[in-house]
Amino acid sequence: MSTIIKNGTIVTADLTYKADVLVEGGKIVEIGQGLLGDEVLDASGCFVMPGGIDPHTHLEMPFMGTYSSDDFESGTRAALSGGTTMVVDFALPSPEQGLLDALQMWDNKSTRAHCDYSFHMAITWWSEQVFDEMETVVRERGINTFKHFMAYKGALMVNDDEMYASFKRCAELGALPLVHAENGDVVAELQRKLMEEGNDGPEAHAFSRPPQVEGEATNRAIMIADMAGVPLYVVHTSCEEAHEAIRRARMQGKRVYGEPLIQHLTLDDSEYAHPDWDHAARRVMSPPFRNKQHQDSLWAGLQSGSLSVVATDHCAFTTEQKRYGVGDFTKIPNGTGGLEDRMPMLWTYGVGTGRLTPNEFVAVTSTNIAKILNCYPKKGAVLVGADADLVVWDPEKEKVISAENQQSEIDYNVFEGKKVKGLPRYTLTRGRVAVEDGAFKGQEGHGEFVKREPSTPV
Amino acid sequence: MSTIIKNGTIVTADLTYKADVLVEGGKIVEIGQGLLGDEVLDASGCFVMPGGIDPHTHLEMPFMGTYSSDDFESGTRAALSGGTTMVVDFALPSPEQGLLDALQMWDNKSTRAHCDYSFHMAITWWSEQVFDEMETVVRERGINTFKHFMAYKGALMVNDDEMYASFKRCAELGALPLVHAENGDVVAELQRKLMEEGNDGPEAHAFSRPPQVEGEATNRAIMIADMAGVPLYVVHTSCEEAHEAIRRARMQGKRVYGEPLIQHLTLDDSEYAHPDWDHAARRVMSPPFRNKQHQDSLWAGLQSGSLSVVATDHCAFTTEQKRYGVGDFTKIPNGTGGLEDRMPMLWTYGVGTGRLTPNEFVAVTSTNIAKILNCYPKKGAVLVGADADLVVWDPEKEKVISAENQQSEIDYNVFEGKKVKGLPRYTLTRGRVAVEDGAFKGQEGHGEFVKREPSTPV
Amino acid sequence: MSTIIKNGTIVTADLTYKADVLVEGGKIVEIGQGLLGDEVLDASGCFVMPGGIDPHTHLEMPFMGTYSSDDFESGTRAALSGGTTMVVDFALPSPEQGLLDALQMWDNKSTRAHCDYSFHMAITWWSEQVFDEMETVVRERGINTFKHFMAYKGALMVNDDEMYASFKRCAELGALPLVHAENGDVVAELQRKLMEEGNDGPEAHAFSRPPQVEGEATNRAIMIADMAGVPLYVVHTSCEEAHEAIRRARMQGKRVYGEPLIQHLTLDDSEYAHPDWDHAARRVMSPPFRNKQHQDSLWAGLQSGSLSVVATDHCAFTTEQKRYGVGDFTKIPNGTGGLEDRMPMLWTYGVGTGRLTPNEFVAVTSTNIAKILNCYPKKGAVLVGADADLVVWDPEKEKVISAENQQSEIDYNVFEGKKVKGLPRYTLTRGRVAVEDGAFKGQEGHGEFVKREPSTPV
Amino acid sequence: MSTIIKNGTIVTADLTYKADVLVEGGKIVEIGQGLLGDEVLDASGCFVMPGGIDPHTHLEMPFMGTYSSDDFESGTRAALSGGTTMVVDFALPSPEQGLLDALQMWDNKSTRAHCDYSFHMAITWWSEQVFDEMETVVRERGINTFKHFMAYKGALMVNDDEMYASFKRCAELGALPLVHAENGDVVAELQRKLMEEGNDGPEAHAFSRPPQVEGEATNRAIMIADMAGVPLYVVHTSCEEAHEAIRRARMQGKRVYGEPLIQHLTLDDSEYAHPDWDHAARRVMSPPFRNKQHQDSLWAGLQSGSLSVVATDHCAFTTEQKRYGVGDFTKIPNGTGGLEDRMPMLWTYGVGTGRLTPNEFVAVTSTNIAKILNCYPKKGAVLVGADADLVVWDPEKEKVISAENQQSEIDYNVFEGKKVKGLPRYTLTRGRVAVEDGAFKGQEGHGEFVKREPSTPV
Ligand SMILES: [Zn+2]
Ligand SMILES: [Zn+2]
Ligand SMILES: [Zn+2]
Ligand SMILES: [Zn+2]
Ligand SMILES: [Zn+2]
Ligand SMILES: [Zn+2]
Ligand SMILES: [Zn+2]
Ligand SMILES: [Zn+2]
Repeated sequence: MSTIIKNGTIVTADLTYKADVLVEGGKIVEIGQGLLGDEVLDASGCFVMPGGIDPHTHLEMPFMGTYSSDDFESGTRAALSGGTTMVVDFALPSPEQGLLDALQMWDNKSTRAHCDYSFHMAITWWSEQVFDEMETVVRERGINTFKHFMAYKGALMVNDDEMYASFKRCAELGALPLVHAENGDVVAELQRKLMEEGNDGPEAHAFSRPPQVEGEATNRAIMIADMAGVPLYVVHTSCEEAHEAIRRARMQGKRVYGEPLIQHLTLDDSEYAHPDWDHAARRVMSPPFRNKQHQDSLWAGLQSGSLSVVATDHCAFTTEQKRYGVGDFTKIPNGTGGLEDRMPMLWTYGVGTGRLTPNEFVAVTSTNIAKILNCYPKKGAVLVGADADLVVWDPEKEKVISAENQQSEIDYNVFEGKKVKGLPRYTLTRGRVAVEDGAFKGQEGHGEFVKREPSTPV
Repeated sequence: MSTIIKNGTIVTADLTYKADVLVEGGKIVEIGQGLLGDEVLDASGCFVMPGGIDPHTHLEMPFMGTYSSDDFESGTRAALSGGTTMVVDFALPSPEQGLLDALQMWDNKSTRAHCDYSFHMAITWWSEQVFDEMETVVRERGINTFKHFMAYKGALMVNDDEMYASFKRCAELGALPLVHAENGDVVAELQRKLMEEGNDGPEAHAFSRPPQVEGEATNRAIMIADMAGVPLYVVHTSCEEAHEAIRRARMQGKRVYGEPLIQHLTLDDSEYAHPDWDHAARRVMSPPFRNKQHQDSLWAGLQSGSLSVVATDHCAFTTEQKRYGVGDFTKIPNGTGGLEDRMPMLWTYGVGTGRLTPNEFVAVTSTNIAKILNCYPKKGAVLVGADADLVVWDPEKEKVISAENQQSEIDYNVFEGKKVKGLPRYTLTRGRVAVEDGAFKGQEGHGEFVKREPSTPV
Repeated sequence: MSTIIKNGTIVTADLTYKADVLVEGGKIVEIGQGLLGDEVLDASGCFVMPGGIDPHTHLEMPFMGTYSSDDFESGTRAALSGGTTMVVDFALPSPEQGLLDALQMWDNKSTRAHCDYSFHMAITWWSEQVFDEMETVVRERGINTFKHFMAYKGALMVNDDEMYASFKRCAELGALPLVHAENGDVVAELQRKLMEEGNDGPEAHAFSRPPQVEGEATNRAIMIADMAGVPLYVVHTSCEEAHEAIRRARMQGKRVYGEPLIQHLTLDDSEYAHPDWDHAARRVMSPPFRNKQHQDSLWAGLQSGSLSVVATDHCAFTTEQKRYGVGDFTKIPNGTGGLEDRMPMLWTYGVGTGRLTPNEFVAVTSTNIAKILNCYPKKGAVLVGADADLVVWDPEKEKVISAENQQSEIDYNVFEGKKVKGLPRYTLTRGRVAVEDGAFKGQEGHGEFVKREPSTPV
Repeated sequence: MSTIIKNGTIVTADLTYKADVLVEGGKIVEIGQGLLGDEVLDASGCFVMPGGIDPHTHLEMPFMGTYSSDDFESGTRAALSGGTTMVVDFALPSPEQGLLDALQMWDNKSTRAHCDYSFHMAITWWSEQVFDEMETVVRERGINTFKHFMAYKGALMVNDDEMYASFKRCAELGALPLVHAENGDVVAELQRKLMEEGNDGPEAHAFSRPPQVEGEATNRAIMIADMAGVPLYVVHTSCEEAHEAIRRARMQGKRVYGEPLIQHLTLDDSEYAHPDWDHAARRVMSPPFRNKQHQDSLWAGLQSGSLSVVATDHCAFTTEQKRYGVGDFTKIPNGTGGLEDRMPMLWTYGVGTGRLTPNEFVAVTSTNIAKILNCYPKKGAVLVGADADLVVWDPEKEKVISAENQQSEIDYNVFEGKKVKGLPRYTLTRGRVAVEDGAFKGQEGHGEFVKREPSTPV
């Protein structure tokens, strides 16, 4: 059975033009005028765009004996509802756990996914075993990205020589290192100091992770990548300090990519001043929300190309889970939702305000990501032969974001009350219509793992 | 009759993949595997890329009662020989001359072109007539770019309020202003001072136009464009000072484009120290060649995206013409060649050294230009429906650049002796094979004017 | 008769120490422990500092057939009351008026001054006469600073080649050029546009002079000074854009000085949104007040040394005079008061907040100015042999600023209601006690002109 | 007995003027015209300046069972011969050694000093004992500066949380932290890699410590100081990357001081390419010499004030000692001489070239250091009551630097063959003439320890 998307305007990172799109067998088989097919999707007044790719999610992430509340089922349901057709999650080995062993756990979790997905592998400790298994992960398991935490001291954090060793290994393997960039030593001390002084509420979370510690770590990771001869991808770039370090590196010709989150682009640190503990705690994530000047910096980065992609760091904890941290902000689980809202929020605040062109919207939500993660043009493209991961985007469709009618399992939404204009009419995952005018029609387990080849090391 | 390009690897700004390209009626009609056609061009071992676009040439430019030596015939012959399939020249009104009147003169000159071309319109003075004719130029004549000279005092130069008025007019019309950015007042004074001190040789040309005066003017033009609410295109960005101003603007989200020349990327100011007057005078152009640090800055700009395109400012004067300036460097006609050499030189020094990817090469020599000048994807693309302006690029083909076997009418070449690796096997202009393994087979008058629509003003 | 300042702590730009100061014949004759003298001033609990120098005032400045309301009598009375013991005013030649002729007019006005003063000479047009008279001004009249207006088109403004010529002349003479840096062409166009659109109120004044036009002009002046081989002093640096240009120049080793005003350090552009026309119009000055981010930039500049001195640009117009501009903001006379308030405001918001040390306070209000303007250590010092221009500063003394009890002739004060802590107990002008605990005891005509030698040109 | 310095021109950081200086009891007792005294030193044609202070020396530093070759006797002899009258050395505790214990060792070494000296205390490990002894060091032992090594992994290096803890302790005590800023983890890995690849020569030393690792560490130390609320002093700032981090911090109002060495200002990395192993190894120090662009950056920093002082890091090893590292560059003892040459080299290349004024020379070699280290105006001043540490500087006196006639115990000089113009006619240490026209007349043991008070913590 074929599906035809008719009367729309195709918008890619490269081009805008009117054409129909014919889908069959999960792939785009023809693009042109007046095409025919079995199932007809009307795209009149709409933009036909590559489905979004979220390069940064934590679904069913282990946490203190429990898990983040959105798993691959609800998470990908949320994703598709918002026009995102692929997520990239993080496989996180425990201390001393082998990479392949951890990967097995993430394989198990992801069986219920509604849309395609891939994994980044985290390097949370270092040993000859890790060194060796990195090769298997790259060559046999189709994962070409390795995440490094410069924060979360005593848990996920790696130090500079481990990071340098791992980056060099990435260089050999044609893999791309990612970093969570905050100075973990300093964060730990600031946390201790704040707790000592009796600042145990969620607002103290922001005080414990100021922009300076993110800027410093970003700058350090860039230097280490430079020494190791490998590009670098900086996750959740939230502030001018980190952005400045990235700009400075790029200005010297270094290949460094920055990933602002939709939260940091549209929400600010005044949220932590809310008198309701729950309200503030629900916004606790790392890095924390920043002020308006940092927001301006991030938007300008998307406009000028010094920042490359927009993600969510979706890691959803219920209010109940957040309350583990009552009386001790360092115990509040870090993370917010966003998978369903990233695309409409970025369209509304980016394209709707004139900051970004529709082509740039596609670039930063999908195409740039697919290129950097090396799954383009299978993903991120409207091209014959590409996977039919598509969104038919209605720029006139509006809603008010609310937890009441969201897909995510959690009981709140950090974008609650935001009015968005620009929403999916249809979302297709490998040809299957999973969302139609707000109704979810996806199929659990439809999602497949996306292998990503290494670059040829230079 | 159809033409099929077989067995090549298509390289665009967006993508690299193996496919055949079928050309008919001057356009690309099919891209795919195992295509058939009448004339077969073997692209084995080659990259099939969009033909180059040179956004900055001066063919048959009037000068002191004579003309620059390459006209649209020899100029476009040189272009095609080097893989460039479109040039954009500057229509330059004389003082008090109307825009449409000047355009008529350029229309007349361009009838002998071998490849397609377009025009920028220069604003060399200001009046209500100019204001009015700008609309006709945009709406009826298909020209959406207006050039402004901040140097050449007493001749082409416009001052700040004229520039601001013209930029605002561009904003209204959806046109893009271009600037030659040097502080003309200061250059004139430096010229006078150098001549007074007896420094009349070609080396004094470089002293009279230091990087500082270019940086200043670039910064000023950016401010004026910002106030007028219009993007800006800075031609021949040659130095860190100007590049810094562009980076700073882009960092704030401003839409500013920089155009380094292949000369500034690969040649340096030591050329002016050559004891032979002719050698040095042949390199006299504005801005002059800079030192190696400026070169590093320009390359890094192409890598990071802070600079957008590579051009030539091709404006060829013979040694005899250059000698008008013996005893007075200010009378040496400004300009060098480069049309035939831009693509091989940039490939050799950019892709061959690992600085640029092949996709980035296509972007800066063709696709970015077509997008900024608003003739994409008619030009700058390998897409069905696009003009078959294509180059079949043999990355193994080598030559040593020499005036002896060049197409240009002049008697020297500033790249003389440079060994390049990477040359066209075939160049096609709207489907016609104009170059085959170094042999020129073009047809005079084949070239057509390319209309370029305005953007919708915001 | 001698005067002895006892029991105070001497604070200079260089040093803090306890000592008595003996004054005789208008000069400091001894500094030491346990000194004796005729008249005893008790400085217990106080800092004995060099009197302030305001490098930027416009007293009795001609304007539309009348004059700015504070003349040398009331202006210097205000200065002394606030701890300032010297002012530098601007001699402004009319179009075609000779420099010496203008100077004669300023000599006449200044006869009533209570404290010492000097002049900057403005270059408001260019000719051989001006070129020649500059030498006389420097060598015979003791003026080594020349002011250039890059704004006020059609009136005071000079263009780039005039400025370059004048700067070169300064270089020859060992004089220092000053600039009012705003792009006058663009300001004029913005004014016209705002008026056309019906924006004729005082708030439009700020819109017509955005930070960008100041940043641009600052950058341009720096380039021209660099080409002319002369240092540069930028008056009333009000914004990050201009400060950035200064920082960038200094980073390259250029000798460029920036002068923020006390108004820009402590007041912001929200003043122009005041519903009362008079309130807003009284704050109309050029450059206009900026937002808080610009304020932060200026303070950081004083801390790091990238900005050198603090001035007032005191140019006082009454509300009645301001009302010339009702219905046309471009006719509102530009200027505010500040002479009496500069020192207490800077102490309160600078030293009182921990931003500046007391030594840095002295440097930016007095010593740096005296050094840059080349009248150190006659002025700006607490040294034996120096003029006894001194302020005995009581860091505990408080008041609320109000027009009701100010010295200035105008009927309002832009700092109205600000509470300051840190005020003069005594102010001495060449040994004479002119202010004692808020009571003015100065003598009209006591002030003398301060000759300032040129630097030896390099 | 009194000593009178007659007919000279006094040059301080603040001022230049002609006066005689009367010295008695080791102190300056009078400054004025026509003074009389017992011993007369003729300063005709000379500048009378504060003696130099070298804030960074390693005399008799323990190393692999032996010591650096200049001890406090020969080191201070060299210092005085070059016009330097005070050195500040580093007390370096061994692992687990207490601070007071280490201080005892340095007290013992310094008994033979010819001129005054002080100590910085190094924090080479962290514990409650160290925390506690810091207070004693500050309050009882007169040391207010603590050095931290971010390199020399496995030996002196401290990590980020130790550094943060120590910086906070400094903040409490009113002490100033110093850092040797290089990323020790990365240096160690680069060393290992170079050795593995067979690069064991001295040129590999420079490859193992590129500017990037210094820039990174500088940036990190600044962030940590900012978080701890304390100023920062960065020793041996050698490159643009580190300087940029310092500039960026200062631009935000942070109190950060950079210390370039005379070696980095005047020598470059081409020295390591010398074919003679000994030649190159003698130049091995950390950070290594850099290229000319870095030199330009350092000079501009001294001009603009973004860098504060000039030091030597004098740590002299003989060629024999250097040869411990034959076959393994990591074993070459790090360090060069410079104490005798700092002042003449900086005068020649700074003042002699017009980069620095004589006042700026005094500031960066003496006065700024005394202020930052809090021993001004006892040291670094020509003021009544100050120690008579003076140099009578003859700007016409010339020599060619050579190991043959140097004071240092080592057998070479990295400035060998440099011609300097500007040398001491006399050097006085607390009133005693220790150098007269090149002849050394000092007295072993004359030097005394200089106590330095803490700042009042804010
Ligand atoms: Zn993270
Ligand atoms: Zn994450
Ligand atoms: Zn040009
Ligand atoms: Zn041109
Ligand atoms: Zn002004
Ligand atoms: Zn003024
Ligand atoms: Zn060191
Ligand atoms: Zn050292």
